[in-house]
Amino acid sequence: MSSSFGTLFRISTWGESHGPGVGVVVDGCPPRIPLTEADLQHELDRRRPGQSKIVTPRKEDDKAEILSGVLDGQTLGTPIGILVRNTDQRPSAYTEMQQAYRPSHADYTYDAKYGIRAVSGGGRSSARETIGRVAGGAIARKVLQHSLPGYECLAYVKTVRDLTAAVPARLSAEVIESNIVRTCDPAAAEQMIALIEAMRSEGNSIGGVIECVVRGVPAGLGAPVFDKLEADLAKAMMSLPATKGFEIGSGFAGTQMTGLEHNDEFYMDEGRVRTRTNRSGGIQGGISNGEDIVFRVAFKPTATVLREQKTVTNTGEDTTLSARGRHDPCVLPRAVPMIEAMTHLVLADHLLRQRALG
Amino acid sequence: MSSSFGTLFRISTWGESHGPGVGVVVDGCPPRIPLTEADLQHELDRRRPGQSKIVTPRKEDDKAEILSGVLDGQTLGTPIGILVRNTDQRPSAYTEMQQAYRPSHADYTYDAKYGIRAVSGGGRSSARETIGRVAGGAIARKVLQHSLPGYECLAYVKTVRDLTAAVPARLSAEVIESNIVRTCDPAAAEQMIALIEAMRSEGNSIGGVIECVVRGVPAGLGAPVFDKLEADLAKAMMSLPATKGFEIGSGFAGTQMTGLEHNDEFYMDEGRVRTRTNRSGGIQGGISNGEDIVFRVAFKPTATVLREQKTVTNTGEDTTLSARGRHDPCVLPRAVPMIEAMTHLVLADHLLRQRALG
Amino acid sequence: MSSSFGTLFRISTWGESHGPGVGVVVDGCPPRIPLTEADLQHELDRRRPGQSKIVTPRKEDDKAEILSGVLDGQTLGTPIGILVRNTDQRPSAYTEMQQAYRPSHADYTYDAKYGIRAVSGGGRSSARETIGRVAGGAIARKVLQHSLPGYECLAYVKTVRDLTAAVPARLSAEVIESNIVRTCDPAAAEQMIALIEAMRSEGNSIGGVIECVVRGVPAGLGAPVFDKLEADLAKAMMSLPATKGFEIGSGFAGTQMTGLEHNDEFYMDEGRVRTRTNRSGGIQGGISNGEDIVFRVAFKPTATVLREQKTVTNTGEDTTLSARGRHDPCVLPRAVPMIEAMTHLVLADHLLRQRALG
Amino acid sequence: MSSSFGTLFRISTWGESHGPGVGVVVDGCPPRIPLTEADLQHELDRRRPGQSKIVTPRKEDDKAEILSGVLDGQTLGTPIGILVRNTDQRPSAYTEMQQAYRPSHADYTYDAKYGIRAVSGGGRSSARETIGRVAGGAIARKVLQHSLPGYECLAYVKTVRDLTAAVPARLSAEVIESNIVRTCDPAAAEQMIALIEAMRSEGNSIGGVIECVVRGVPAGLGAPVFDKLEADLAKAMMSLPATKGFEIGSGFAGTQMTGLEHNDEFYMDEGRVRTRTNRSGGIQGGISNGEDIVFRVAFKPTATVLREQKTVTNTGEDTTLSARGRHDPCVLPRAVPMIEAMTHLVLADHLLRQRALG
Repeated sequence: MSSSFGTLFRISTWGESHGPGVGVVVDGCPPRIPLTEADLQHELDRRRPGQSKIVTPRKEDDKAEILSGVLDGQTLGTPIGILVRNTDQRPSAYTEMQQAYRPSHADYTYDAKYGIRAVSGGGRSSARETIGRVAGGAIARKVLQHSLPGYECLAYVKTVRDLTAAVPARLSAEVIESNIVRTCDPAAAEQMIALIEAMRSEGNSIGGVIECVVRGVPAGLGAPVFDKLEADLAKAMMSLPATKGFEIGSGFAGTQMTGLEHNDEFYMDEGRVRTRTNRSGGIQGGISNGEDIVFRVAFKPTATVLREQKTVTNTGEDTTLSARGRHDPCVLPRAVPMIEAMTHLVLADHLLRQRALG
Repeated sequence: MSSSFGTLFRISTWGESHGPGVGVVVDGCPPRIPLTEADLQHELDRRRPGQSKIVTPRKEDDKAEILSGVLDGQTLGTPIGILVRNTDQRPSAYTEMQQAYRPSHADYTYDAKYGIRAVSGGGRSSARETIGRVAGGAIARKVLQHSLPGYECLAYVKTVRDLTAAVPARLSAEVIESNIVRTCDPAAAEQMIALIEAMRSEGNSIGGVIECVVRGVPAGLGAPVFDKLEADLAKAMMSLPATKGFEIGSGFAGTQMTGLEHNDEFYMDEGRVRTRTNRSGGIQGGISNGEDIVFRVAFKPTATVLREQKTVTNTGEDTTLSARGRHDPCVLPRAVPMIEAMTHLVLADHLLRQRALG
Repeated sequence: MSSSFGTLFRISTWGESHGPGVGVVVDGCPPRIPLTEADLQHELDRRRPGQSKIVTPRKEDDKAEILSGVLDGQTLGTPIGILVRNTDQRPSAYTEMQQAYRPSHADYTYDAKYGIRAVSGGGRSSARETIGRVAGGAIARKVLQHSLPGYECLAYVKTVRDLTAAVPARLSAEVIESNIVRTCDPAAAEQMIALIEAMRSEGNSIGGVIECVVRGVPAGLGAPVFDKLEADLAKAMMSLPATKGFEIGSGFAGTQMTGLEHNDEFYMDEGRVRTRTNRSGGIQGGISNGEDIVFRVAFKPTATVLREQKTVTNTGEDTTLSARGRHDPCVLPRAVPMIEAMTHLVLADHLLRQRALG
Repeated sequence: MSSSFGTLFRISTWGESHGPGVGVVVDGCPPRIPLTEADLQHELDRRRPGQSKIVTPRKEDDKAEILSGVLDGQTLGTPIGILVRNTDQRPSAYTEMQQAYRPSHADYTYDAKYGIRAVSGGGRSSARETIGRVAGGAIARKVLQHSLPGYECLAYVKTVRDLTAAVPARLSAEVIESNIVRTCDPAAAEQMIALIEAMRSEGNSIGGVIECVVRGVPAGLGAPVFDKLEADLAKAMMSLPATKGFEIGSGFAGTQMTGLEHNDEFYMDEGRVRTRTNRSGGIQGGISNGEDIVFRVAFKPTATVLREQKTVTNTGEDTTLSARGRHDPCVLPRAVPMIEAMTHLVLADHLLRQRALG
């Protein structure tokens, strides 16, 4: 069951990196939502390898085929099956990884758990698994847009190592997509790209922080206790490959404030309850309060580096391993659509759950 | 369903702060695990109000009664029902909160979601809800200790605002429990206590960071994709009241390293696969690797402050509110057993899931 | 998790027959539904032992205490905890059952599964477990009545062994409750009561069939594929103690007809789609069609008989066992409210699920 | 979520009858179970249309492609994605069904629930959906055979309308597969086939009862309360298309016995606890007792008949409808592998759940 996410709006992903394909089943999508393969493709293209000079050059078109649940451009309310064939498998590139565990990858732990693993391409632990998430997220987004007119979710690269983007007063998808690193600060983008390219040329890698801002979520979405909106978002984000941290609103920095400084005072604004500050990050007691939902996710530097590293073999002997071939020197540009997808999925699920209360 | 947590080892908590009582049902606990009410009480006493001069003075014994699922000191494999009666309700202390929404509390969002709420004591959003978690966690701990001989989970206060504890080479429960703030650094404890008391006297509040170290978890626990061990831990922690951030292993600081610096090299140690560093925090690809599991949780300063704040009424008018009565100037000391409880719950669930694979 | 039922409207029961008490947590109940303890008590009194001369004389008031989730006669949207204390435990009456497995009871299988069991009173396998179901069902009924104005669910004893009730054209709760056997045919009731009393005096027992008719469910409730309305009803009914069969609409008898005879033709009736016959039992393709939902449940004769029977001990030796004490010679009268409760639970869950689709 | 079944061993089916294809994702399958596409194909061929003169002649090879989760003939422990392309779609054959609701089909109720439906071929309500179940069941069977050496599940046609098969003392798959109706009584098979062919030639249809016997399930599988083994089996069977009833062991006939007649006395047999009779059907208190599990399922006559019937249009007008084209005059022969598949799925899930208890 660990490959399913959501309670009412639920996705189940499947697929190994170098198997026949990857995909997803979306169950619980309401009927009569407009949906085409182009809706999916737009998001998949943002996640795709080979999209720019700073991501892995693996050649994959990642063309999504909708196999069920949609008729004449409308959802039927039945499960939506989606398939993406894998095309660029290179089993030969992974021969020596078969015996040696790649440091900070999932090779060893998969073996410890299952006693077997699809070595080639990382199998199920590959980032290709996120294709199903991004496709499912694109559908969740349509559901949200259908019900919440002002719904908008924008993720962007906030930092790459020590380079920090300035966040403009008015964010837009256009600005974020205007640069290949997907930062909200085109001026910083140049430096970030240069840093990522330098890392690539060294066979090294780098991480950073992505921030996500969600607008147009009305007050009242979410749940108390275990399924708090921030708890579900945290799980969603920490389930993405390479994530090491999650914080919402004031986050870790909020621990430096007193309660009087930190509290978000309420005021009335044209008949609507608002807060003057947003240290809560748009969520209070697990439930949205109508302000922007704002959170950040930390990504470690990619574990794949093209340099010799010490490690052990699957038969318990010390050895060294030099990875060759393709790698993402920085996962951030491709992680932006993943974060948006997971956010859509969490919110669509809570939207349906809220409706159930009548 | 938002009041249940876990898939195979599942708790369902219930209860409002000022209702007749609070409690939990634990379903899925294996049979023949030794268990007594004293096992629960020990953990509940660490969570209890009134335990020291730096926590809320609300008078509650928090005596747990086991209503089912246990016979002659052994679990039966059937649901374990646990009840704690509320004794110190003061509805009168909350009269003015009935109309005015307390800033950064859940008052407004509960109203937005449900159109009704138990005003007194915060109702379901009160920290009293965590009694059920701590009781359930105490049972999960027994299950883990029964199967994993070296299992140990130690949480401790790492920082209070800008005061940081030194983490000793050898942590122990004795050191952590030796001071009322539950830090691992008794020298820092004095300053932390002084700071918390100063905040209390001002009617203000303060937050900080708790770190948690888990030992004795073998390689292979956890799951790939959505139910990664760190994802489930993140959800568990972010579902606790007042949490604003979660990070595992290198966390946000890890974004400042390159891949070559960050990767945990493997080596053989007396026949066992180990890593020289632990930036992974004991989890790789969502599955434990046998190293210590290490994570941190950020807690905001308590929202209850005894000073006048601007806010709005539930009929949409600007107003001010001065909270009176009891409050926790800092939630950290009482949050330590909550974090341990949630950790036990996540791990017991994954232990059972791993067994199911055969 | 085997003690929870439902997805959105979910109950979790707990409690052993001779432990401190039994109860239930109801999670997912919408807010602002009128609810009092009297609503529960009315149904619990129909399930209660000692209610008439044809049921077990165990002395239990079965007074339900609502511990959470309700304030001033309205649900809060939070979990509703309910407790019924056990009062009439007689551990001594069960001494010899400790070693010998009662035929056609759950003694042996509980030992086989758990390696431990609460011998006294049957522990968790006792019909006392259904108290939580009946209480939860009473709440589900309030939810249904709140949303579906004409909602009515009437179960009644259709047969006791070979005695069959005539079903009147217009069923009513009054007629069913007018006799202690809870049949819809007061004339047949006398014979049924006589038969049950004869069985009791012989220390023997008897079974029969309960029919249930649900009115006022609009077309469109239910789901395709696995959670078909009849599938969920079947599971609900077959989870009740002593059930051996379930059939809906034409049921087993429908296998004697051809398709042309069996099909329910549609026609328009004052703007509403209706069927002239109802062999479908109100459900087509797993989804309600607006006709009455009609199903039947077979109950075996009670396993407890007060006569000597051959059996084996828990150490694997042949032996005999003569049960003494209290028993229900026929479970049907007390099973009527259980069947209604489970029906309410299934329908309330599907009502909420339908709402979620928007 | 209504298209998923199981808790630990979970299948999620997808696909419309006349869409691009149908399939299933199997999540929770243990690793290192031998599995090939041939294992699936063997069962799919038993379910396939066109397999004999008494089933629908729709031309479908139903070739299953495993897309993930299996490597070199072994399961990986990751989700197993399976795809079957649809090839013989005839949208034109369904033109008039677009407006007129077919009696006793799901056309009207799907419209009532979703406000949209895939008209052609019945869309999601088509028996093609069961391809995913049969494929998933074939995998569950491998898991059971891997752990329970003597595991065997045999379903067979017991009655076709009023024709009843004699059940031989020693059942075998060979006998059942020796005739195209899949009954256990080859002598009766001839009459059954003649009856079915007569119905087909009249454009009419017919139903009957399938019995299923499961051997080699040890005592202790199942669960108390809601997830009783018979409850899960009942749900599984009643979720199959065209089912109207389920009974286990003595079933409805058991209501004609007294408790003394009905109880299954225990005795010791070479160190093993056995019962002399099996009115319990192999399950007591929801948990297997080691005897054969025996149950029966009633199937209505197929709703598709090639004769004029009265009905209504989707715009609310009385009309008549004469279905043309292909139909199954009797679903029983193809339902046999479906019942076995659902049984495997229920038991594999409970096997994994039992293991989780340690």
